[in-house]
Amino acid sequence: MKAPVRAALALFLTINLACATIITPRTSAQTKEAAPALDGFTAGESDAQRQLEERFRAVPLPASAREHLRTLTREPHVAGTPEDYRTAVYVRDQLRRFGINAELREYQVLLPYPKHPTRLELVAPRRVSLNLEEAVLPQDPSSSHRRIIPLFNGYSATGDVTAPLVYVNYGLPDDYAALKKINVDVKGKLVIARYGRSFRGVKAKVAEENGAVGLVIYSDPADDGYTQGDVYPNGPWRPETSAQRGSVMYLFQYPGDPLTPGTPAVAGTPRLKQDDPTLNIPRIPVQPISYGDARLLLEPLRGPVRPAGFQGGLPFAYHVGGTEDVRVRLKTEMDFQIRTIWNVIGRIEGAEERDRWVVLGNHRDAWTFGAVDPNSGTTAMLELARGFGELLKTNWRPRRTIIFGSWDGEEHGLIGSTEWVEENAAELREKAVAYLNMDSAVSGANFGASSVPTLWKLIRAAARDVRDPKTGKSVYQAWQDRSRAARPEAELTDAGAGTDTAIAEARINALGSGSDYTPFLQHLGVTSLDMGFGGDYGVYHSAYDSFNWMEKFGDPGFVYHVAAAQIWGTLALRLANARALPFDYADYAAELRDFVNETQKTAARRKLADDFDNNALLTAASELAGQANRTKVALTDVLAEIEDTRPRADERHARATARLKRINDSLIAAERALTDARGLRNRPWYKHQIYAPGLYTGYAAQPLPDLRQAIDDRNTANAREAAVRITEAIRRAVAVLRDGRGN
Amino acid sequence: MKAPVRAALALFLTINLACATIITPRTSAQTKEAAPALDGFTAGESDAQRQLEERFRAVPLPASAREHLRTLTREPHVAGTPEDYRTAVYVRDQLRRFGINAELREYQVLLPYPKHPTRLELVAPRRVSLNLEEAVLPQDPSSSHRRIIPLFNGYSATGDVTAPLVYVNYGLPDDYAALKKINVDVKGKLVIARYGRSFRGVKAKVAEENGAVGLVIYSDPADDGYTQGDVYPNGPWRPETSAQRGSVMYLFQYPGDPLTPGTPAVAGTPRLKQDDPTLNIPRIPVQPISYGDARLLLEPLRGPVRPAGFQGGLPFAYHVGGTEDVRVRLKTEMDFQIRTIWNVIGRIEGAEERDRWVVLGNHRDAWTFGAVDPNSGTTAMLELARGFGELLKTNWRPRRTIIFGSWDGEEHGLIGSTEWVEENAAELREKAVAYLNMDSAVSGANFGASSVPTLWKLIRAAARDVRDPKTGKSVYQAWQDRSRAARPEAELTDAGAGTDTAIAEARINALGSGSDYTPFLQHLGVTSLDMGFGGDYGVYHSAYDSFNWMEKFGDPGFVYHVAAAQIWGTLALRLANARALPFDYADYAAELRDFVNETQKTAARRKLADDFDNNALLTAASELAGQANRTKVALTDVLAEIEDTRPRADERHARATARLKRINDSLIAAERALTDARGLRNRPWYKHQIYAPGLYTGYAAQPLPDLRQAIDDRNTANAREAAVRITEAIRRAVAVLRDGRGN
Repeated sequence: MKAPVRAALALFLTINLACATIITPRTSAQTKEAAPALDGFTAGESDAQRQLEERFRAVPLPASAREHLRTLTREPHVAGTPEDYRTAVYVRDQLRRFGINAELREYQVLLPYPKHPTRLELVAPRRVSLNLEEAVLPQDPSSSHRRIIPLFNGYSATGDVTAPLVYVNYGLPDDYAALKKINVDVKGKLVIARYGRSFRGVKAKVAEENGAVGLVIYSDPADDGYTQGDVYPNGPWRPETSAQRGSVMYLFQYPGDPLTPGTPAVAGTPRLKQDDPTLNIPRIPVQPISYGDARLLLEPLRGPVRPAGFQGGLPFAYHVGGTEDVRVRLKTEMDFQIRTIWNVIGRIEGAEERDRWVVLGNHRDAWTFGAVDPNSGTTAMLELARGFGELLKTNWRPRRTIIFGSWDGEEHGLIGSTEWVEENAAELREKAVAYLNMDSAVSGANFGASSVPTLWKLIRAAARDVRDPKTGKSVYQAWQDRSRAARPEAELTDAGAGTDTAIAEARINALGSGSDYTPFLQHLGVTSLDMGFGGDYGVYHSAYDSFNWMEKFGDPGFVYHVAAAQIWGTLALRLANARALPFDYADYAAELRDFVNETQKTAARRKLADDFDNNALLTAASELAGQANRTKVALTDVLAEIEDTRPRADERHARATARLKRINDSLIAAERALTDARGLRNRPWYKHQIYAPGLYTGYAAQPLPDLRQAIDDRNTANAREAAVRITEAIRRAVAVLRDGRGN
Repeated sequence: MKAPVRAALALFLTINLACATIITPRTSAQTKEAAPALDGFTAGESDAQRQLEERFRAVPLPASAREHLRTLTREPHVAGTPEDYRTAVYVRDQLRRFGINAELREYQVLLPYPKHPTRLELVAPRRVSLNLEEAVLPQDPSSSHRRIIPLFNGYSATGDVTAPLVYVNYGLPDDYAALKKINVDVKGKLVIARYGRSFRGVKAKVAEENGAVGLVIYSDPADDGYTQGDVYPNGPWRPETSAQRGSVMYLFQYPGDPLTPGTPAVAGTPRLKQDDPTLNIPRIPVQPISYGDARLLLEPLRGPVRPAGFQGGLPFAYHVGGTEDVRVRLKTEMDFQIRTIWNVIGRIEGAEERDRWVVLGNHRDAWTFGAVDPNSGTTAMLELARGFGELLKTNWRPRRTIIFGSWDGEEHGLIGSTEWVEENAAELREKAVAYLNMDSAVSGANFGASSVPTLWKLIRAAARDVRDPKTGKSVYQAWQDRSRAARPEAELTDAGAGTDTAIAEARINALGSGSDYTPFLQHLGVTSLDMGFGGDYGVYHSAYDSFNWMEKFGDPGFVYHVAAAQIWGTLALRLANARALPFDYADYAAELRDFVNETQKTAARRKLADDFDNNALLTAASELAGQANRTKVALTDVLAEIEDTRPRADERHARATARLKRINDSLIAAERALTDARGLRNRPWYKHQIYAPGLYTGYAAQPLPDLRQAIDDRNTANAREAAVRITEAIRRAVAVLRDGRGN
C-alpha cells in the first residue's frame, strides 16, 4: 500500500504548492487595501504591526523545521535522563544563537522509571508470558534504539499480584456501574481497561476506588488501531505490538512533583514522605500493553455477556470475565528516585512594558522520540524564535516581555511547568499577561484550539492571517470548512431554514488538563490557550512517535510545523505589542451563561434544580457582560485619545496612557479574580472556579467544576456552596473590570 | 463459555416459571371484573369472545411446538425439492388431524438451484481458491446433512468473470457515490459488498446499474458476527465459515414467478421467455460468502483509503481496492428450471359470513433447515390450528371463514403466496378481510410488528392479552418496556418535563417487503400485518438455522412458539368473530399526515417544496380522519341497535344487520381503494399508492412510494403526478367509507 499512497500524496502536495502561487494569500491582499485596525492597536500602529507580523511569518521554513526535529528526535529523551539534558542544551543554545537570552533552570523531583521490565503472565487457562515489547520495524530505523524505555505507566506502584481478570471497558465509573448491574464485582481482581474517553490516571483512580488489585490498560484497535486505518509502518495508526506509555499521576488532585505540592522542588524545600497517603499517585500496579498482548488475555475470558458498548475491535466477542477461568499475574518493579529535570527559560525584554510578560510554553521531554509529542511543538517554538531573532536583528523590541518556557517532566505530570509556576507565582500573578501553550504542534493538518473565551476572537483573527499549506486558504477557513463538512445535510439546512446564516464560527474548546497550561490557568488564573494541528495519529506515546512517522505521515513536507510557528508567533507578537490587550470578556460572560444553563439542565434531570442559586450565577454573568462591553467602549476611546494626542505627548497623552495601563491591568486581573485562594473542594491546589479537569473527565474540562461535581454526587450542600463561590468569583471579576476603568 | 451460561439460563427460566404461578395474568384478572367490550363486539358477545379466546390460548404447548419444529427441521427443504414436498404433506395432514380442511395447491415456476458449487478464486496477488462451505460442527448434528444446498444467491446469473475487486461497503447508491468522490469506478470490475441495510436484490441491481460484472456479498462480523456477540455454537451469532444464502430477485419490480407477472403460474398460462429483458432478475453473477472467506479477498485490497463508514469488523483497515493488485475470478453455474412448488391451503368455514375471509399465512420452504426462518412460524401456525381444532370439537364455528396458507417458494421470491393471490385475485378482492402474516415467528423474546395503521389498536389489544413467558407481564408491557429502555435518559425527561406522560405506545412499523404480505397488501389492497418475536440471531439463511440453534439460543423452552401461536390466534379469532370489523382508519389518516409532512420536509431540503400539491394531500387525509370518526360513531350505534333488537329478531334488527354489513364492507374496501389499477411508475404490479418497498430501500417500506422516489430523483413532473394519484386514492377511500354508512 505504501507505494501508491505515497505517490498520490506527493502529487497532491505538488498540485497544492502550484495552486499556492496562484491564490493570493489573504494577508498580502489585505494589507494593500485599508484593512480595519487590529484589535488593541491604534489605526496608525495597526499597519506597522501587520507588516511586522508578515516579516516574521516569512522566516520559518520547512527545511529548518525538519532539521530541528531531526536533532531533537535522534534519541529517546525521557525527563531526567542525560539525553533529555542534551535536548535542553540544544534548545538553550539555539535560542542564544537567535539572540535570545536563555538559561537552564533545574528542579529535583520524584521521578519513577521501571527498575525491571514488567512481567505480565496469563496463569490460567494456560501459562503464557506476554511480550510487552514494541517490535523493531525495519522501515523505522529508530525503532531499534536500545534506550527506548520499556512499556510502563509513570507512578504505577511496585507490586506483584495474581488474580482473576475482569474486563472493565474504558474503566470509568459508568463502566463499573454497568458491571455492577450484571453482578460482576472487581474487588480483589485484576482489571483490564482500554485506553480512551478519559485520562489514564482516572482509570487508575477508579480501579483503586473499586478495590481492584491491579490495572492493565491496553490500546484497543477500535480506538487507535486498524479499525481507524492502516497501521504503522503502512499507515499512521497503532500496530499490533505497540502500546501507550503514560503517567497515571492523579493530576486532577494536583500536578507537578508529588512531594512538593504548591511549592517549587528546589534544594531545601520541605518534602512530603513517599508513603504520604495524600500523594497524587496510585497505590496499585498499573501497566500499559498492546492489543496484540491484550488479545491473549481477553479472548479466553468467560463470565457474563458484556454490557452494551463494551465490545472493541478485536475479532471475537468480548466477555467480562471475573471467573476463575482466567487468572493473570502482574509484577511491576519501579525505581522511584529524586532526579533532576531541566527547564529552559528564554527571554526577550519588553521595550515599554518590561514587567508585563507574554509566556510561550512547550514541553521537551518525551516518552520515546517525541516527534509529535512534544517536539513538533519544540520545533515550532525554535522556528518562531528564529523568526523573532530576525526581527531582533533589525532592532525591533516587543512592547512587552516575551518569555519562552521549554518545560521538562511534562509527561510524568506537568512537572517542569508546575514547579516553575510555583517558584515564580508571585511575579507571574503580577506580570503574566497570557500563557500560550503548544504541546503536540503537528500530527496532521487539522487546526484546533482550546482557550479561555477571552482569547477566542484573537485566535480566530490570527488563524485568518496564516495560510493553510494544503488548501491554500487561510487556516481559519480550512478549520471552518472542516466543521461544516462534519455536520449532516439535514442539520445544516433544517437549522438555517435553507440559508447558510446558521453556520457558526469554528469551535474553540474549554481547557481541561493534560498539558502545561494547567498551572498557569488553574493554579494562578493566567489567561491561557493551547493549540496545534491534529490528524490521524495512532502512535501516541509509543516507540513509533518517531522522525520517520512524521516524515511519512504526520507532516511529510514539514509545512505544518511552519504554519504552527507562524500562528503561534502571530499571536505572541499581537499580545506583546497591542497597546490595549485584545481580551474579550463578553465572550467569557456568554460562555459562563451557557455553562450555567447546561449545569441547570443536568441538575433538573437529577431533580436538584432548586438546590442552588442559579439566578445569582446568571446575574453575575450578565454583570460581567455589561462591564466587558463598557470596557470595550472605554478602550476604543482611550486608544483614539492616545492616537490623537501622540504627536504632542502632553499631559492629556500621559493621562490616557495611564488610564490604558489601568484598564489593561484590569483585563489581566479579571482572570485572576476567577480564582479562589481556598481552592476547589478537596483539591486546594486548583484555584480556578470556572475551569478545572473533572475528577473523572480526565483531560476534558469540567466547567464550574465544584458545582458539577456536587451535582454528580447529588450533594445539595456542596452544590449550594459551590454556586456561592462561583458567583463570588464572577463578581470579583466584575469589580476588577469596573475599577479598572475608574468610572 | 457454554456451561456457565446454560446453567444461568436454566436457572432464569426456572425462576420465571415459578413467578408465573404467582403473578396473575392480566387476562384472567380482567374477565372476572367488568371488562370493557372488545372492539367490534356487542357488550353481550364480548365476554363470550374473551372466554373463547382463553380456551383457545390454553391449548398451545411447548412440548407440542417442539415436536412440530423437530419434524419440520429434520432435513433441508428448499422450495421444489422432495423434502419440501414432505413438509407440505406434514402440514396438510396435521391440519386435517385438527379437523381442518386442507389441500395442496401446486404451481410451476422458474426456480434456480446451483448446478455446481460456485468457484471463487483470488487470482492476484496470489492464487487462492476460496472454500465456500459452512463448517460441520460436532455440536450441531444437522450441520453435516448432505442435502444442505451449496452457498448461492437465488436468481444469480450464470457467469464466469475475472476482474479487479472493489469493496463497495453495503453496495447501495450512497456507497457508490462515496466511491465516485474518491474517483473509484466499478465499471468492468467485480464488487464485494457486505450484507445489511437493504435487501440483497437491491445490491445486485445497484451493482448492475453501476457496470459491475459480478457481485460477491459477505456477512461482516460487525453486522451479525463476533462484534455482536459469541458465535455459534458458543453463542447465537454467525461463525467464521457461515454465509447468508438468499434471493436476489428484483422483488421491488414484482415478486413471484419471474415468467408470469400478474398471472398464476399454472398449466397453460403464457410465460415470458427466460431471456426477456423485463424479467425481475439480475444479469450478473452474484455469490454470498462468509467473513472467513471475505477476509482473504479484503485484506490484500489496496487503492485509496476507504470512505467514512466503510470499515467493518475484520481485524485490519479496509481498503477500497479497484487496482490491479487484487484480481478475483467468480464462476457461477445455475440450473434454471420450471419446477413444481406446493402451497397448503386450509379452511374453516365461517358460520355466518362464509364469504368473508380472514387469511393467516406463513411460508414453509427454507434455505436449509429453517428452524427460525420460517418454521418457527409454521410451528406457531400448527399450534394455533390445534387450538382452533379443540374449539371445533366443541362445535364452535367462526363467524367468518378462516383460511390458512402455508406458502412455498417464499425464499426464492414470495412465489407461493404471489401465485395464489394472482390466481384468486378476484375472489380475494371481494372476500379478504385481512391477511395476518408470520414468517420467522421466533428468534428471541422481543415482540415486534408491522402493519397498516388500521390494525394498530387491534395488535396492541391482542398483545395485552397474551403473557410474555420471560417476564410474566403481558407481551404488550414487555414490548413497551423495551422501547423505553432503548431511549436515553435525557430524551425521556427532557421531552416530558419530568413526567412520564410523553411515553408513547410501542411502535408498529410500516410494511415494506420481504415476506408474503406483499401480494396481499401491495398488489390487492388487503389490510395486512406481519409480526414475530425477534432476538440475537446471526445464523439467518445459513446451515445453522437449525433445531439445535433454536433449542440452545432462540427459544430453549419453546415458550415463545406458544406465545406466537397465542397472539396470532387471538388476532384471528377476534377478526373472524367481531360483528363490526375492529379497523381504525383514523390512525391511518394520522399516519398519512405524518408521511406527507415527512415527505414535505425531504422535498424542502432538496428545494422541491413547491412542486407538488401538499395541501391537497393533507386535506384528503383530514377528510379520511373525518369519515373514519363518523364510521366509528355509526358502528357504535349499529352495534347497540343490534344488541337491543336481537331478542326480537325483527325488521329493525334485520335493517341494523344489513347496515353493519355495508359498513364492514366499506372498511374492507377502503384499503382496496388505496390501490390504483395503473400501478406504480414503471412497476405496474405494485398497485398500492401508500405502501411499497422502495426501489433502493429493499425490505424497508418507502411510504408514498412514487412521490418519495420522484423527490429522490428530483423529478418535478413525476412528483406532481404521484401526489395527484395518491390524493385520488385517499379520496376514493374517503368516498368508500362515506358510502358505506349510507348517509
